[in-house]
Amino acid sequence: MEKIDVGILGATGAVGQQFIALLADHPWFRVSWLAASERSAGKRYGDLPWRLASPLSPDIARLEVAPLDALDKSPSLVFSALDASVAGEAETAFAASGRLVVSNARNHRMDPLVPLLIPEVNPDHLSLLDEQRRARGLKGTGGIVTNPNCSAINIAVVLAGLRQFEITRVLITTLQALSGAGYPGVASLDALGNVIPYIGGGEEEKIENETRKLLGTYENGSVRNAAFTVSATTTRVPVADGHTAVMSVELAKKPSIDELSAALAAFTAEPQSRNLPLAPKPPMIVHAAQDRPQPRLDVHHGRGMTVHVGRIRPCPILGYKLVALGHNLVRGAAGAALLNAELIVARQRSGSHADADRKLHAVAASGKVQPQQA
Amino acid sequence: MEKIDVGILGATGAVGQQFIALLADHPWFRVSWLAASERSAGKRYGDLPWRLASPLSPDIARLEVAPLDALDKSPSLVFSALDASVAGEAETAFAASGRLVVSNARNHRMDPLVPLLIPEVNPDHLSLLDEQRRARGLKGTGGIVTNPNCSAINIAVVLAGLRQFEITRVLITTLQALSGAGYPGVASLDALGNVIPYIGGGEEEKIENETRKLLGTYENGSVRNAAFTVSATTTRVPVADGHTAVMSVELAKKPSIDELSAALAAFTAEPQSRNLPLAPKPPMIVHAAQDRPQPRLDVHHGRGMTVHVGRIRPCPILGYKLVALGHNLVRGAAGAALLNAELIVARQRSGSHADADRKLHAVAASGKVQPQQA
Amino acid sequence: MEKIDVGILGATGAVGQQFIALLADHPWFRVSWLAASERSAGKRYGDLPWRLASPLSPDIARLEVAPLDALDKSPSLVFSALDASVAGEAETAFAASGRLVVSNARNHRMDPLVPLLIPEVNPDHLSLLDEQRRARGLKGTGGIVTNPNCSAINIAVVLAGLRQFEITRVLITTLQALSGAGYPGVASLDALGNVIPYIGGGEEEKIENETRKLLGTYENGSVRNAAFTVSATTTRVPVADGHTAVMSVELAKKPSIDELSAALAAFTAEPQSRNLPLAPKPPMIVHAAQDRPQPRLDVHHGRGMTVHVGRIRPCPILGYKLVALGHNLVRGAAGAALLNAELIVARQRSGSHADADRKLHAVAASGKVQPQQA
Amino acid sequence: MEKIDVGILGATGAVGQQFIALLADHPWFRVSWLAASERSAGKRYGDLPWRLASPLSPDIARLEVAPLDALDKSPSLVFSALDASVAGEAETAFAASGRLVVSNARNHRMDPLVPLLIPEVNPDHLSLLDEQRRARGLKGTGGIVTNPNCSAINIAVVLAGLRQFEITRVLITTLQALSGAGYPGVASLDALGNVIPYIGGGEEEKIENETRKLLGTYENGSVRNAAFTVSATTTRVPVADGHTAVMSVELAKKPSIDELSAALAAFTAEPQSRNLPLAPKPPMIVHAAQDRPQPRLDVHHGRGMTVHVGRIRPCPILGYKLVALGHNLVRGAAGAALLNAELIVARQRSGSHADADRKLHAVAASGKVQPQQA
Repeated sequence: MEKIDVGILGATGAVGQQFIALLADHPWFRVSWLAASERSAGKRYGDLPWRLASPLSPDIARLEVAPLDALDKSPSLVFSALDASVAGEAETAFAASGRLVVSNARNHRMDPLVPLLIPEVNPDHLSLLDEQRRARGLKGTGGIVTNPNCSAINIAVVLAGLRQFEITRVLITTLQALSGAGYPGVASLDALGNVIPYIGGGEEEKIENETRKLLGTYENGSVRNAAFTVSATTTRVPVADGHTAVMSVELAKKPSIDELSAALAAFTAEPQSRNLPLAPKPPMIVHAAQDRPQPRLDVHHGRGMTVHVGRIRPCPILGYKLVALGHNLVRGAAGAALLNAELIVARQRSGSHADADRKLHAVAASGKVQPQQA
Repeated sequence: MEKIDVGILGATGAVGQQFIALLADHPWFRVSWLAASERSAGKRYGDLPWRLASPLSPDIARLEVAPLDALDKSPSLVFSALDASVAGEAETAFAASGRLVVSNARNHRMDPLVPLLIPEVNPDHLSLLDEQRRARGLKGTGGIVTNPNCSAINIAVVLAGLRQFEITRVLITTLQALSGAGYPGVASLDALGNVIPYIGGGEEEKIENETRKLLGTYENGSVRNAAFTVSATTTRVPVADGHTAVMSVELAKKPSIDELSAALAAFTAEPQSRNLPLAPKPPMIVHAAQDRPQPRLDVHHGRGMTVHVGRIRPCPILGYKLVALGHNLVRGAAGAALLNAELIVARQRSGSHADADRKLHAVAASGKVQPQQA
Repeated sequence: MEKIDVGILGATGAVGQQFIALLADHPWFRVSWLAASERSAGKRYGDLPWRLASPLSPDIARLEVAPLDALDKSPSLVFSALDASVAGEAETAFAASGRLVVSNARNHRMDPLVPLLIPEVNPDHLSLLDEQRRARGLKGTGGIVTNPNCSAINIAVVLAGLRQFEITRVLITTLQALSGAGYPGVASLDALGNVIPYIGGGEEEKIENETRKLLGTYENGSVRNAAFTVSATTTRVPVADGHTAVMSVELAKKPSIDELSAALAAFTAEPQSRNLPLAPKPPMIVHAAQDRPQPRLDVHHGRGMTVHVGRIRPCPILGYKLVALGHNLVRGAAGAALLNAELIVARQRSGSHADADRKLHAVAASGKVQPQQA
Repeated sequence: MEKIDVGILGATGAVGQQFIALLADHPWFRVSWLAASERSAGKRYGDLPWRLASPLSPDIARLEVAPLDALDKSPSLVFSALDASVAGEAETAFAASGRLVVSNARNHRMDPLVPLLIPEVNPDHLSLLDEQRRARGLKGTGGIVTNPNCSAINIAVVLAGLRQFEITRVLITTLQALSGAGYPGVASLDALGNVIPYIGGGEEEKIENETRKLLGTYENGSVRNAAFTVSATTTRVPVADGHTAVMSVELAKKPSIDELSAALAAFTAEPQSRNLPLAPKPPMIVHAAQDRPQPRLDVHHGRGMTVHVGRIRPCPILGYKLVALGHNLVRGAAGAALLNAELIVARQRSGSHADADRKLHAVAASGKVQPQQA
């Protein structure tokens, strides 16, 4: 099967580079187009700083970085790693031009017509994309699909595994990695040997709100947020990659600790059954060792897509306590968007969206969007 | 006024060294005797590794380290920085021989006859010492007084400031410093760029239990634990000194956020009114900046005795959220014991325990316990 | 082709675990036997702590750890990751019993009859193995082959690339990673935010002596050390993996900086031409960016086997300056030994040691050494 | 004696804050005026971020930050912590207006008429200030005095102690702290668990050139650089404060190791004999323990002004090896400038510059420069 050309918006930042690394040997997608802000536009990508340990492929290094307004050159599927300061307008423009924008930016996440998607958690919310296209008159495969905040995603996967027990309240403290702040991000003098008890940009509100949309119910063309209450405190710790979340959870159905552990360990979902290329198997690993999960030992498991859970035990206040961990740049950003795109493509291929699929491939084959097809 | 000679049990460990550093220029106490396990006994203290940044005084360097069973040479007041594996028996023996043991070890903390003391929190619990002497037939100034676990202490000081609002539930996640594990403690390969979501030795239980004894009520010769519920998760982060506690608190009286902040900022207690040498003024600093308190910027304030509070705000689940920070080796260990001893001496001097005071000073003047006085 | 069974002596330490990780999917070798000190002997390997980020294979987890004296059960090829305190005698015993011991321990490195081998640097020194067998009456494939110290190896690879210019003096400062001290190794309180300007165990002497043996000349059954002078200072820095060496080099032939760079970039050797499984291609990467090589970005390149060189420029004192970097646990330990074993097996297979090859395979096929063949 | 009013140019950066911290309780100087770039000008100093662990005094917090061109309001003595991008012109303007600028910036260091001064190394170079005033027609106490780069200073103090043995060649590798790059400086993702083998801004050239001017000879109104050769490689390591320098030194007079150690330990100079407030006593500590000096344990000694030396031993190439350490923001920046000012004031007071002294104090008393006095 021919690979689908994809573009990356915001290709030079920390998440943009992670997209490129994860797509290096992807069986379905091929990066053919890169765009970034004016500072980098016009340069050869290989001449810009590359800050990942995995080497940059020569094919990508050769690409010239396009400006963000060059949307007529873009393939029909683009991943967005844009900064929130520019993502809002740019993504809207790409969607309006018929591109499918699979975005990691926060701007459109809480838009009632935009799916906030984790394939293991709420694949049915993808149907919002049709509503979005209809309501906004988007051409062809145009539209925006988002993934949640890098902390919210691990938490939401855990909550998806607990949904059957009826979640009522969730109290969370996160210990978040430096790479979550992008590059250059946190100054080393603030990070080294220190804890910063606050993360700007509404991090706590994102966790509190996005989890409720993610675990919400899709009905009659819209999502009704889940009814549980979330309280989050977010802190920054001197860890390179991997957000840890210490969670206390209240569950109406009062499972035993063993039942709760078993439910998380047994959890599986559509990405696993569809065998999506980046789907971790299983999506969650439940650790028995008391001192796990740890960023250093666990964060790279499953190519960074696995969510880790440990220290499952009773909480004298809310009933249940546990610790969750996931790779914030992979499971929490680039890998999240990529898995979203894999779900979309897999569903199209399996015939559930046969028409859209034809369009996307026709477009992909030509390397650019052809207006008459939209 | 003549200084009182004091001894240090466990003088070679991380807490023992901190005792020596804090006592270097103490106006009331003079370190005249050091004891440690057999490995170090018989050696000149200055020939053993000194791992603090503040220099070791030549007067202390000259002292020969005594074995733990040489109690007849010990002064009448000893600080114990012993490891829990040996503290239980050793402290009992020193108390039985008429020494006042002001201990940082966990062994006797939950003993109903042993004060678990924070001078700002429960100075009235010191009366247990008389019960202890009576019940156990301890000679003269003999007895054991303890301070809480290095995490529990910061939390308890904050709770003392909130006591007026009737605490009902407290949910805590700690981010604890490496020095809390002693030396050599945590392996650097486990610590660097990592979070360990578990601390051994019953750390979480200590927080859950000690805070309830600390905030308990002294009545008729015993302490009735406070009735609130505590749930703690303790983690280790790559910070040298300073335990951070992220707290959610439920209060029956529902103060406003401003009332709660004002109460903490206004909190003061006996050590401050007595002007004890090591008493921080104020005991708590309430930070307005969202990114505070931080170990790097705040932990050395007030010679390490200040408790820091920040991020006071509503919790949608328990009502109130905040972040607390304190120096685990000072406020949480050596400084805690030292302030306990200061309170005891200050009360004696002020006549409230005139008789005991005479004994302690008679003993101190002679440099050793005189049996006829006991 | 059937895989050769191999054993690992000292399988539980940092280097032992790295051996297991590197051998997980090795095309020629299969780990079938593990041995360690008494503390671990008798246990299932999977029940012991595993401290690497790459997962432990279930096949290895199943193995029971043998004691170090169980040599009659060992395969004919064993890798030694033993601590120097026990490696001397144990390796001698295994060699005497007919096993080929490919060791990372320091004990036998400077033995005139033991090859101190880096396949890219001095593959001809392997002939010492025949001398060793003859002189010591070793049975069959018995013998000891060693790789150098984890710092010396990167330096020696660089010097091999410069050998054509006649090296006369080399002045080195290393900045070494924490994993070089094993586990638990350096205490986190000593490591965090600190530099320790000394590494025990004769680290500097090893660099000064081993490089001269490695670059020495094999003639008439013995190695004559290279004549250049080496001066080393070794320091410990808070890096997990990757030893950096800042080097000033004096060369008799005075190449230009461009000639020197070109020589290092063009350097290749027998492991590359034989296409050994673990041979990095090229063995050295010469970086043009001034801020490279860096442990974080470069150390995992080439599965950790690549040696990195950067900052090549004139030294006003010795003529040439550069910075080298290599992965101390892979290129500097387990990978080094593994590449040594690959060279030995590849040479046997290619007929240069046809007789030894037959024996090794006969032994390997049977799973244990058969005395009649020795 | 009345305190002298001083101003600080560049008061908001890392070095500017260090000036304020060191001047908090200075017996001779009182900070009365702060200036910074336009971004901060007009603000109350206490409203700007304060990034040091020592608390900011309320007297300083109250000051309004002046713009850099408000020189008519400045006291007659100003310390400059300006960034090199603006220091050149600004310092020239302040000097022209009759202010004595004691600067940490690099811009004027190599100016033949500007003293590059370390009071322990080359106090006689201060006479250049008279040449400077004469040649440039500076009014009154106007002029510029500089201190060297934060790495060069520790090295120069060590070399001053070795000068008697006739230094011929010095080869240096530094391991420099993050605070040397200012704030925000190095990105935490580049710093954490990493070594960067390069420091921009000509760091190596500064060490190579400044040490030769510092150890140079003042004769007939100018400084003749020392004739020895210096070769430096500078690296960045994840340490907060404290630059380590690994040095190999060639000495014409070939002292024994003991003679060299004794010379460094016995070294003392004018700041010590004059008992200047910030002068460390002794200026250098020679450590016997092999694992010292270390940033964590040693850098705060002597209020950060002590230079530490350890690991003195033979170098097979240049003769002598040692490791030096000093606090880059104190001994290497703010403290260096402050000691320079103390030397100037002390000499004036002791009558050697009685006339200038009168002027400086007249000016200081009035709080501003009075043109008629210039």
